[in-house]
Amino acid sequence: MMKKHNFSAGPCILPQEVLQKASEAIVNFNGLDLSLIEISHRSADFVAVMEKAKDLALELLDLKDKGYSALFLQGGASLEFLMVPYNVLPIGGKSAYINTGTWSSKAIKEAKLLGEVVEIASSKDSNFNYIPKDYNIPDDVTYVHCTSNNTIFGTQMKEFPITDKLLVCDMSSDIFSRKLDFSQFDLIYAGAQKNMGPAGTTLVIVKDSILGKTGRQIPSMLDYQIHIDKESMYNTPAVFPVYVSMLTLEWLKNLGGVEAVEKLNDAKANLLYNEIDSNPLFKGVAKKEDRSNMNVTFVLTDDSKKQRFDELWKAAGISGINGHRSVGGYRASIYNAMPIESIQVLVDAMQAI
Amino acid sequence: MMKKHNFSAGPCILPQEVLQKASEAIVNFNGLDLSLIEISHRSADFVAVMEKAKDLALELLDLKDKGYSALFLQGGASLEFLMVPYNVLPIGGKSAYINTGTWSSKAIKEAKLLGEVVEIASSKDSNFNYIPKDYNIPDDVTYVHCTSNNTIFGTQMKEFPITDKLLVCDMSSDIFSRKLDFSQFDLIYAGAQKNMGPAGTTLVIVKDSILGKTGRQIPSMLDYQIHIDKESMYNTPAVFPVYVSMLTLEWLKNLGGVEAVEKLNDAKANLLYNEIDSNPLFKGVAKKEDRSNMNVTFVLTDDSKKQRFDELWKAAGISGINGHRSVGGYRASIYNAMPIESIQVLVDAMQAI
Repeated sequence: MMKKHNFSAGPCILPQEVLQKASEAIVNFNGLDLSLIEISHRSADFVAVMEKAKDLALELLDLKDKGYSALFLQGGASLEFLMVPYNVLPIGGKSAYINTGTWSSKAIKEAKLLGEVVEIASSKDSNFNYIPKDYNIPDDVTYVHCTSNNTIFGTQMKEFPITDKLLVCDMSSDIFSRKLDFSQFDLIYAGAQKNMGPAGTTLVIVKDSILGKTGRQIPSMLDYQIHIDKESMYNTPAVFPVYVSMLTLEWLKNLGGVEAVEKLNDAKANLLYNEIDSNPLFKGVAKKEDRSNMNVTFVLTDDSKKQRFDELWKAAGISGINGHRSVGGYRASIYNAMPIESIQVLVDAMQAI
Repeated sequence: MMKKHNFSAGPCILPQEVLQKASEAIVNFNGLDLSLIEISHRSADFVAVMEKAKDLALELLDLKDKGYSALFLQGGASLEFLMVPYNVLPIGGKSAYINTGTWSSKAIKEAKLLGEVVEIASSKDSNFNYIPKDYNIPDDVTYVHCTSNNTIFGTQMKEFPITDKLLVCDMSSDIFSRKLDFSQFDLIYAGAQKNMGPAGTTLVIVKDSILGKTGRQIPSMLDYQIHIDKESMYNTPAVFPVYVSMLTLEWLKNLGGVEAVEKLNDAKANLLYNEIDSNPLFKGVAKKEDRSNMNVTFVLTDDSKKQRFDELWKAAGISGINGHRSVGGYRASIYNAMPIESIQVLVDAMQAI
């Protein structure tokens, strides 16, 4: 059977060898004659999975032995929108948010439940097609929150705020895709379902020293310190999503880590953006300097070609490239596991109109 | 390969045919040539899974078209401990809890963050080896909370409070295992990882009319009404755990539903309890009238036989029967998917000492 070219924005493509191993573990895990999903999460076999997943996450971000903890929690980035202020914002405190789209807006909404939010910059004025770079960080905020990549609009931050406040970043859609100095962040969170694994687990990387300073009574399940103390097993974790995340991080390490995959990602993005810029039938949505290497948004310049183009890419085995309803057009999500060959297939379809 | 006899308390045994289908869906779901875990949760194929899972849950509990909604959320029962008071307890309100063990105690701890909790009964005085039945429900509480089955201590409620207050029940470890009048409850929640599926999703069944009456500002991810309005897709759900839950509920329906499985569960529990009661080397932990049909707790009456018994059950391919550290001895969890043949293997080992 021909493997589809899966450009889905998330949940999205995962490495084929990861899917194969995950499938096998469902019937027989570690040669135990038991399924991964029917053994105790307290068993030595699963505890080793959780430990390895946390360890690989820190290692790949070059944050091992630097005072950070890694957690695999439930609830997606959407629950982190609430957990961040719960754990970091003092009672009566203020926070600063850079609004670069849907996800930032949702983060702001939850933070407002716990304190004053200063929206220090926003690109809402042009439907979030750029990253605002001109802002001042008030002196009385505890932390600055940003979203590194915007799946819907196809923008990506290339530079991050330089500040003496805590720096918090939602990296759901580009974590593990490029080299950054991750130690500039105090708190990073990411839903797994882009570059890391299946839906159902969320990676949180937190600098230990920032916790315990809010004066708040934090509900147990929302308290990072409780999860750290219980080694990410305060309650039954999402066993399968954590296991597949571990497999994917292992795959990435074997590939050469974040630096190696960044080179591949650059080549993939260049191939597609070059076609968008050189083909008069297409136009990019995001401002050039803020273009995402993960989610490539583009539109047809001639709507009468839509039917023909849609037929072409469907015939080529491409799926998942319809744009988000708030942007329209097309969105090709080209995460870590996407081979450049699939992008060539898309480029071929763009050229064949 | 010999299939193990898996008595794990949770995550636990699932039907073999469910594991097989789940394994296949990881490499090719619905004949799409795509993995279940790499397609969009908004795709028609996955939306159908979510709808079917919710529908089967209501159907099997005989709650269809009776004003209830079903949700598949993240965070486990532990997050529900917080969500219940957030969604049901008015500001300044009081709630009543029956404390039957570890899980009730944790539920009480979270509820206290949002209002006054009256612990109307507790069996803590004898390490939770019975279900307290003598209690008064104060007139000024909004709801009464109970835990239907206690995995750790091996007790199970046979009768539920009769009250004009809202009735809330944590059914994590015995939902779908026996016939009850489920319409006596206003709110039921259950982590999937016992009778329903793998860890990572939580079923919530809520009577629509009880919501929206607290006067509280509820964070989005903790708000049942938001999840209902978004059809359990407010954010990306735990795709794989929901899918496997759907498969398990389908398996249960084909088996004849809750009534049919209850007969099998009764036969299984009787076989094991009869051996415990007739074999002088063993003694049950829970009070007879409160014995759980899901988790059978027992100890050796002669500790010198421990090594011999442990060798016997291990040699027979049995796993997961060590008791919880707070009780000791043994715990055989005999959930829906456990065949009676496996229990016979355990009984044989008990007789062979």
